Amino acid sequence: MSGHPVVVEVTRGPMVESRHEGIAAVVKPDGTVVASWGDIDRPVLPRSANKPIQAMAFVESGAVERFGLGDEHVALACASHSGEKRHVETVRAWLKKVGLGEDDLECGTHPPRLQATIEELVREGRAPTPAFNNCSGKHSGFLTTAVQYGEPTRGYIKYDHPVQRRLRAVMTDLCGADADGFPYGTDGCGIPTLATPLRSLARAMASMAEPSRLSNKHAEAAGRIRAAMNAEPFMMAGTGRFCTRINAALPGVAQVKTGAEGVFCAMLPTLGVGVAIKMWDGAARAAEVAMATLLGHLGVLPAGQRDELVHPPVRNVVGLLVGEMRPAKSWLG
Amino acid sequence: MSGHPVVVEVTRGPMVESRHEGIAAVVKPDGTVVASWGDIDRPVLPRSANKPIQAMAFVESGAVERFGLGDEHVALACASHSGEKRHVETVRAWLKKVGLGEDDLECGTHPPRLQATIEELVREGRAPTPAFNNCSGKHSGFLTTAVQYGEPTRGYIKYDHPVQRRLRAVMTDLCGADADGFPYGTDGCGIPTLATPLRSLARAMASMAEPSRLSNKHAEAAGRIRAAMNAEPFMMAGTGRFCTRINAALPGVAQVKTGAEGVFCAMLPTLGVGVAIKMWDGAARAAEVAMATLLGHLGVLPAGQRDELVHPPVRNVVGLLVGEMRPAKSWLG
Repeated sequence: MSGHPVVVEVTRGPMVESRHEGIAAVVKPDGTVVASWGDIDRPVLPRSANKPIQAMAFVESGAVERFGLGDEHVALACASHSGEKRHVETVRAWLKKVGLGEDDLECGTHPPRLQATIEELVREGRAPTPAFNNCSGKHSGFLTTAVQYGEPTRGYIKYDHPVQRRLRAVMTDLCGADADGFPYGTDGCGIPTLATPLRSLARAMASMAEPSRLSNKHAEAAGRIRAAMNAEPFMMAGTGRFCTRINAALPGVAQVKTGAEGVFCAMLPTLGVGVAIKMWDGAARAAEVAMATLLGHLGVLPAGQRDELVHPPVRNVVGLLVGEMRPAKSWLG
Repeated sequence: MSGHPVVVEVTRGPMVESRHEGIAAVVKPDGTVVASWGDIDRPVLPRSANKPIQAMAFVESGAVERFGLGDEHVALACASHSGEKRHVETVRAWLKKVGLGEDDLECGTHPPRLQATIEELVREGRAPTPAFNNCSGKHSGFLTTAVQYGEPTRGYIKYDHPVQRRLRAVMTDLCGADADGFPYGTDGCGIPTLATPLRSLARAMASMAEPSRLSNKHAEAAGRIRAAMNAEPFMMAGTGRFCTRINAALPGVAQVKTGAEGVFCAMLPTLGVGVAIKMWDGAARAAEVAMATLLGHLGVLPAGQRDELVHPPVRNVVGLLVGEMRPAKSWLG
């Protein structure tokens, strides 16, 4: 445990060219801090890193069973997907099952993440639609929950809609603080993103990782979500991505989720802890190295992936190795 | 003048969601520091931000006149262009004029910057070529200089090739330190990028902004380069980009150039100073806000552009204003 912040370095030749600072917490379900770096009482906007928490109310609603949904849909509800074919088609089929369509999604449209997918659309003369939005699975989960409870679907992204109120109730139960009291901003996909102390975010993840203190309803949903994240890692992100690789490599051991602006969360059920990281500058590249470093430090990152994920290469345009990313010695020694 | 670092904040709703730290120097040609923030003796890799310096030897060689080149070529030699049609076609025509072709470029190929350009290529069934590389103008300048001096063109990116040796000789003359003694890494485009104290980088920019202390040859080339950067701002970057906007808006007053990993440089001839900025985390978004803030602070940013460039909006997927970027109050008060 240390007050020194997380520092990730980017080298080029003999130089540290850039560096990223952040905070990190490893916490137990009762709030005990196992390890921390920097001021973990600072509130952070979790962005997409808490999608597994946001999927709880969906799974608890019974809609998964009622509409014949499976692990792929639960994983999509927790995902920031790349808008690849299987993601988009699964979201479309899901919405159809619950009597809705892409027009009901209020997340907006952005181009898919992979250049290959963009080029495929161009070649076929098609434009992206809301199902391509990286949050379309989460929003489908929101819509499905509203349908399940007979609520109006329109406006489900608003702070006072029952869908969002339920998210805050679950968050309160998991993190040990009153989420209704958290300030909030508007996320990229339009929903409120709650300013959560990093310590509380890690505790919420711990509660999902080791849910014995939770109600049966919460505990069952948490287990279902963890299983789905490992069972359908492609749905969590996409081709070549960190979340897909880690969730595929560590079934039952780790469930990880990235968020915008340098946030990363993990559930580590075999250790009974949750992890939350925020890089102050919002750098995704650094949050990944920081998460890989922590997973290695905690003994759960497979040796075969450690070098590549903790020390990812920096290459130039022709592919020459010109540097690397790495945890600073000042961080973990 | 202050020892406190440059800090740029990114807000979302009521929160500062992310923040970027860096260093900045405003220096005169004789090395006098007019203003500084943070440890400006720290060496930084200038990356593309010193392309105007790297264009000096090209302009001094006489190749511009010999091959009938103009401001558009001089600007391209200083540019990190977006690979739009005019950039690519001008580079191709230029190489032909000097008896070379795209195969002689050693910068490698990467996709163009604008999604629209990528989609145009896909629709036409074409792939990007080395001319699309953002550095293809700089490399064309290198090749042209080698041709002009009758040197082998192959290997012009190597540290010991005469082309690279000349760059270091010019840098030494402009910055007041021995550039042959600088450690170096390999840049994205394959050439050495020299670890330069930020103070020296700003001084080199000052020497180009106000070159009366330089040799006639250097002074004439610096004037020619400054004029070309303002005369052909589109060639410096491309549609919608910061360098294009500022170089277009401030003829004779400012010539600015961005570099990878959060570096930004400016020549301010009416003030007789040079500016260099490095954001520690490498964030381009922050380097732009920092440069706009400094240009405002120094009184050269037009009022009509100030709000938008110093406080750029943060929007979500549907275009809603959800936050802004801004200089921290702790920086300039």
